[in-house]
Amino acid sequence: MLSQNRPAEDLTETAMEHKIAAQPALANGKANGTNGTNGTASSIAPLDASKLTIQRADPTAREVPDEVAACSGNETICTDHMITVAWNASTGWATPELRPYGPLSLMPTASVLHYATECFEGLKAYRGHDGALRLFRPDLNARRMLMSTLRISLPAFDPAELEKLILALMAVDGPKWLPRSRPGSYLYLRPAVIGTQPQLGVQAPKAALLFITASFMPRLDVPAGGMRLHTNPEDMVRAWVGGFGYAKVGANYGPSLLATNEARQRGFGQILWLYGPEGFCTEAGASNFFVVWRSREGQLQLVTAPLDDKLILDGVTRRSVVQLAKERLADEVEVVERKYTIDEVVEASKEGRLVEAFAAGTAFFICPVSQIRHRDHDVHIPMVKGESGLYTAKIKSFISDIMYGNVQHPWGVVVDEQ
Amino acid sequence: MLSQNRPAEDLTETAMEHKIAAQPALANGKANGTNGTNGTASSIAPLDASKLTIQRADPTAREVPDEVAACSGNETICTDHMITVAWNASTGWATPELRPYGPLSLMPTASVLHYATECFEGLKAYRGHDGALRLFRPDLNARRMLMSTLRISLPAFDPAELEKLILALMAVDGPKWLPRSRPGSYLYLRPAVIGTQPQLGVQAPKAALLFITASFMPRLDVPAGGMRLHTNPEDMVRAWVGGFGYAKVGANYGPSLLATNEARQRGFGQILWLYGPEGFCTEAGASNFFVVWRSREGQLQLVTAPLDDKLILDGVTRRSVVQLAKERLADEVEVVERKYTIDEVVEASKEGRLVEAFAAGTAFFICPVSQIRHRDHDVHIPMVKGESGLYTAKIKSFISDIMYGNVQHPWGVVVDEQ
Repeated sequence: MLSQNRPAEDLTETAMEHKIAAQPALANGKANGTNGTNGTASSIAPLDASKLTIQRADPTAREVPDEVAACSGNETICTDHMITVAWNASTGWATPELRPYGPLSLMPTASVLHYATECFEGLKAYRGHDGALRLFRPDLNARRMLMSTLRISLPAFDPAELEKLILALMAVDGPKWLPRSRPGSYLYLRPAVIGTQPQLGVQAPKAALLFITASFMPRLDVPAGGMRLHTNPEDMVRAWVGGFGYAKVGANYGPSLLATNEARQRGFGQILWLYGPEGFCTEAGASNFFVVWRSREGQLQLVTAPLDDKLILDGVTRRSVVQLAKERLADEVEVVERKYTIDEVVEASKEGRLVEAFAAGTAFFICPVSQIRHRDHDVHIPMVKGESGLYTAKIKSFISDIMYGNVQHPWGVVVDEQ
Repeated sequence: MLSQNRPAEDLTETAMEHKIAAQPALANGKANGTNGTNGTASSIAPLDASKLTIQRADPTAREVPDEVAACSGNETICTDHMITVAWNASTGWATPELRPYGPLSLMPTASVLHYATECFEGLKAYRGHDGALRLFRPDLNARRMLMSTLRISLPAFDPAELEKLILALMAVDGPKWLPRSRPGSYLYLRPAVIGTQPQLGVQAPKAALLFITASFMPRLDVPAGGMRLHTNPEDMVRAWVGGFGYAKVGANYGPSLLATNEARQRGFGQILWLYGPEGFCTEAGASNFFVVWRSREGQLQLVTAPLDDKLILDGVTRRSVVQLAKERLADEVEVVERKYTIDEVVEASKEGRLVEAFAAGTAFFICPVSQIRHRDHDVHIPMVKGESGLYTAKIKSFISDIMYGNVQHPWGVVVDEQ
């Protein structure tokens, strides 16, 4: 029976294990996924970056815009190329293709357009001050993408192959689109998998497409006066225990827009999503959320929500903040991953113990939070020189130094540019 | 403040009202949506079916397959035409186009592919035994589509215009694809709206596409031996209070596939989704769920989950079952919309009081349920001649008679065929 032999929390994992096991090429780690067990000659091909084919765009056809211009319109400006890899249930992953960026053709009955069979990742490529082009911990994005893909019933793959494909796209488009003449700039990388099977009916898609784009994205980490958060309306919940809040699936985003738009019309940047009657703080918009406060006992603490109930995303930036703060700030700040409520934040503020707050994620990087509106209360959060808290700035520079090559660190993965 | 002047439950509605109010053409009901209030000459066009343009496919290019062949592959077979209507935030709804069925072109950065900004409807067109072609209560689908559209931050429209477009598609494709020589057959109609703005970033799309297809869909209402349900794993919840379980948005479907596939691998047709520690019965797969039981006091009751907590879809079939049972079976069966738990169902079964159960929805129509597996228990549900319960069959024939014109009824809307 379902509930007898293992904790209930393991069931999602179990279903994913089943799914991985059902894909022999992945389960046994073979580079060539011949499935000999069923006695047929059929083979289910695994995702294989070494097979990548390259069809180049005319390199003179498009000029690289400056960053501000590229981010000012209603359309994301992508680089010259994208990578696409088709998958279907009977043959597995097709040959990965690096090809000119352009539209996708989908039948109106495609699964993704009706049933949200879709997931994605977000990471950035950074042109370092030392001239090198780096990704930041892309292995974590690739592994999370596999987890999201399985949660939404899309096909499994070896995350190492996805990482290679991301590097391959940057190897080709990096030199032109992140030129050495623009140190300190970045591009946004968006791998995604969508269900493409043209069949209506609620079922796991038998065809899918993995694609990767690279594009400009505005700098969101320095809003004037800091980010202002509004807690969610009481009748709207972002994620719930037993749901999929921890997965980077489209289904976590579209439904959040209504509340986010309401908040923006009131002058706030993002929703601070609370959970349950207790009002546990979970995420700020689509970013993780941190506060720095002094406990009643006088201990300075960096506090963020835990991952164990699977309500929130296991952010790469979140992980890095936690790890670096533990390594480098242990003498000053205790790092605490625990459930905490908005009432605790309000009380800390009233008692003068609230020190800083920030959102952490790939899009918003480390973004200082200056205000939280919750029902009748406005919590105002100190900012040094109106710009950021002290620890926020410290942590931001730790990570930024790795991203842009001011320090050499294993988290900064250098792209071998063509 | 958010929570002071109205019940918390109203906030979602409030946000939707705001959104409708922000679209002057819809809010004031004008056929031509000139927005004169801001002093500019700009106009936001409303959805207007009267502007429909028609580009016909070659009528001889495709033959109409028989129903079984059409439903046997991995691809939905659509009719010759589809309807598409583009929208953007600055100009509103473009001219609706009836045109040959074919692929859609979407940029890889399109909102729908990442953030699940998508919603849909499902209804059928029925070729009557009297020769007429009918839709069943399409006004309810059109209104629900508006609700879903707003919940997922897509553009508003007048539901009456959507209904006209659905009728227009059937007026053109009905005569060929649902010929009078095939009374008792149907086509499945799928209106959908998707966010098409090619911009990454979590925001309400500024461009969208409404499209309508008509296709074959297999008959799902007579599975051999009845539908077998498995309750959801304890760590997976379909919808939750404060979420969007009542809206027909993609985000309700993709995340449900993992549990559904697990159940299918165990030989079950659908998940019976329970809610909360009490185990309230909510939906069967993507259908509403009904049981017929005898109360301890001996009263025969038709029981289904209520709509008020917004966990479940306000199904057109569900509504029709409730309404017809109240009108026509009042002497025999009491209709009860209330929260009820799986334990109540198990107890009723053990005490010999469980009479029937069925799923109700457009895809599965009225589908008899013969078994529910819940943890250690198998609940077996009586079926007359192994096919259906008595009341299940009665209610099914009430509705079927309206759909196929055996009786004339205002719910059967006749298509004026070309």
